[in-house]
Amino acid sequence: MSDLPLNGIRVIDLSTAYSAPIGTMQLADFGAEVIKVENTSIGDPSRTWSPLHNGQSIQFLNMNRNKKSVTLNLKSEQGRALLYQLVQTADVVVENFRPGVAKRLGCDYETLRGVKPDIIMASLSGFGQTGPKAGNAAYSNIAEAASGLMHVTGYPGGKPTASGVAFGDSVAGMFLAQGILYALVHHLRTGEGQYIDVAMTDSLFHLIMQGVIQKSLLGEEPERIGCRDLSAYPYDIFSAKDGYCILGTSTVNDWTPFAQAIGRPELVDDPRFDTNEHRVLNADLLSPYIEEWARRYTRAEIQRIFEEKKLAFAPVLTVGEAMEDPQTRHREMVVDMEYQGMGRYQMQGIPVKLSKTPGRIRMGCPHRGEHNGEIYGGLGLSGEELSALRRQGVI
Amino acid sequence: MSDLPLNGIRVIDLSTAYSAPIGTMQLADFGAEVIKVENTSIGDPSRTWSPLHNGQSIQFLNMNRNKKSVTLNLKSEQGRALLYQLVQTADVVVENFRPGVAKRLGCDYETLRGVKPDIIMASLSGFGQTGPKAGNAAYSNIAEAASGLMHVTGYPGGKPTASGVAFGDSVAGMFLAQGILYALVHHLRTGEGQYIDVAMTDSLFHLIMQGVIQKSLLGEEPERIGCRDLSAYPYDIFSAKDGYCILGTSTVNDWTPFAQAIGRPELVDDPRFDTNEHRVLNADLLSPYIEEWARRYTRAEIQRIFEEKKLAFAPVLTVGEAMEDPQTRHREMVVDMEYQGMGRYQMQGIPVKLSKTPGRIRMGCPHRGEHNGEIYGGLGLSGEELSALRRQGVI
Repeated sequence: MSDLPLNGIRVIDLSTAYSAPIGTMQLADFGAEVIKVENTSIGDPSRTWSPLHNGQSIQFLNMNRNKKSVTLNLKSEQGRALLYQLVQTADVVVENFRPGVAKRLGCDYETLRGVKPDIIMASLSGFGQTGPKAGNAAYSNIAEAASGLMHVTGYPGGKPTASGVAFGDSVAGMFLAQGILYALVHHLRTGEGQYIDVAMTDSLFHLIMQGVIQKSLLGEEPERIGCRDLSAYPYDIFSAKDGYCILGTSTVNDWTPFAQAIGRPELVDDPRFDTNEHRVLNADLLSPYIEEWARRYTRAEIQRIFEEKKLAFAPVLTVGEAMEDPQTRHREMVVDMEYQGMGRYQMQGIPVKLSKTPGRIRMGCPHRGEHNGEIYGGLGLSGEELSALRRQGVI
Repeated sequence: MSDLPLNGIRVIDLSTAYSAPIGTMQLADFGAEVIKVENTSIGDPSRTWSPLHNGQSIQFLNMNRNKKSVTLNLKSEQGRALLYQLVQTADVVVENFRPGVAKRLGCDYETLRGVKPDIIMASLSGFGQTGPKAGNAAYSNIAEAASGLMHVTGYPGGKPTASGVAFGDSVAGMFLAQGILYALVHHLRTGEGQYIDVAMTDSLFHLIMQGVIQKSLLGEEPERIGCRDLSAYPYDIFSAKDGYCILGTSTVNDWTPFAQAIGRPELVDDPRFDTNEHRVLNADLLSPYIEEWARRYTRAEIQRIFEEKKLAFAPVLTVGEAMEDPQTRHREMVVDMEYQGMGRYQMQGIPVKLSKTPGRIRMGCPHRGEHNGEIYGGLGLSGEELSALRRQGVI
């Protein structure tokens, strides 16, 4: 059979911008035929987002590889009819309109399962399809704020801090992909379709984990702790001679070699630091010893010392440095791409490494409507019919 | 058939602590029978991590609901033989030892597919099973530093900042679950097993997305930008009278109502702010107008004004506030649990809402070895044999 696990699975992707498109890209990497349905004016709005290069958005390129694109005016009756024809050929439909909009456009689950009873449909939104905030506008940082994540990110005494990448979008996109995969397994076993509702705020709240139990069981409100951890110390950011690095111990056994590594073997039995509990409690007393040592060495020197003792170490790499790192290269996490008008560029590889059915980048990002001929032709529409639909503003 | 999509799928889970156990919990929520294999001394080390409550770790409770637990000494020959018997009854094996350890313990993929040819095996590690850093120690913040994520999280002029929750662990755990689901789909279609290799650093690097293209195409090294966004302004954190909040515009159409909302309609056509590009460029000039306005109102007052204009708003909630939020409650994202010796507590709910086969919390966290009788009994071992194995330190 096929060498990609989702070969033959057709996904009609009505979603735009970030969030859901990240999930559908992951499914596309593993063989799903993802057909991006774009409006007939500007298409996916992320095609216009800054930063631009040669007049085109670099953001669109992040999350639309391996996808096909058709244009379709969902607000026209003929457009809707064409969508229903497409849905009849599909396994999955994805959308991330604001809750309520899909129903107005005639592409909600109730309508689409009338068109194809075993369809799987997945919706992604900021707060979910139900509840008092269902209709509220939301972007990634809104979800970070509403979930409690932003409050616990940052340094004590400093401001709440957003994640450096849009986790509200991407984590929800990943849960969307996970939900679709559960539904596909169920469909393979029973032939039944179903509806999936994923919210950005729910998704981030799910990953708070320890903070929720800490609040409910200990009555403690989780606060910002910088780069530290509640459970272990040393585990922190330090300034080396040439930049920041993370030094860590996690197991209790790491402490003796750590104290030796920083030339302070006498700290091992110091009653302030002799147990992990004491080190966590007295982190502010311990950290200056480490900082004072770290400042005397470059990150490469520290790395050598720490690797020799099998202690955890990482320099805080810039994105550019991470891209050039031999490990990143070895893992094929940077891939070369090309897009007409943009020339060559690099994007992230595939993090799920499957031995028998590995994901594969089979094509770059599509131009808007690039696959109209192929996809609508596959529905039996002739070239003349497509021209007529184009003139009428349907596609 | 079953009402949970992964019913009948047995997962032998050799993983400990964070990372992989988050992924196997998600699979367990959707019906997989996850059997946690714990060592015969302390079990999963996260059972001992602070913070403690009544002498037990609250961290273990985060990610082990819906799982069964057996004890097994993998370093004994009899223990290994018992593992192989278990693997013969399983669909999936999961491990997150440091690369190389599984082979030493006789539970690497090559060995286990000799035991069961169609087994799916998934490994999670800090840097992956291959490459120059494969064997390096890694925890979540190490992966955040090595992936470039930490460098871009925080405020300009401030220090690189760790995420408030351990995304290195949880995002990798989610990719592990995703990989297992691809492999299950392939197994359902072909009967074939395979091996899955997921790394924390790869997983986070995958989500950097825009930064990678920005560096390769524009030659710009992504830097820390606080709670802002490269593509749109206003989209930032502000101080209201009673705390922080996020105010956002994302579409170009939001700007006029936003300027009206803050009582500054004259800014709409101000040449410094008239287009999104100008607002992004002059964000430092625009933000004081918003800040000055926000300080005069409470977050509830701002919320009313913004919701009326359908603009994006969220207060920066503490974890406790997020837990009490009516939307969180409505979405059943906080669930009540109980654990012997800990009493009642609350933990995160299930963010993937499936209409026909919803996830379900069927049981709480297991005690170490709680299911020895059930699982080993299922292999045909008698009560006397189990007692003997216990005396010999095998289970």
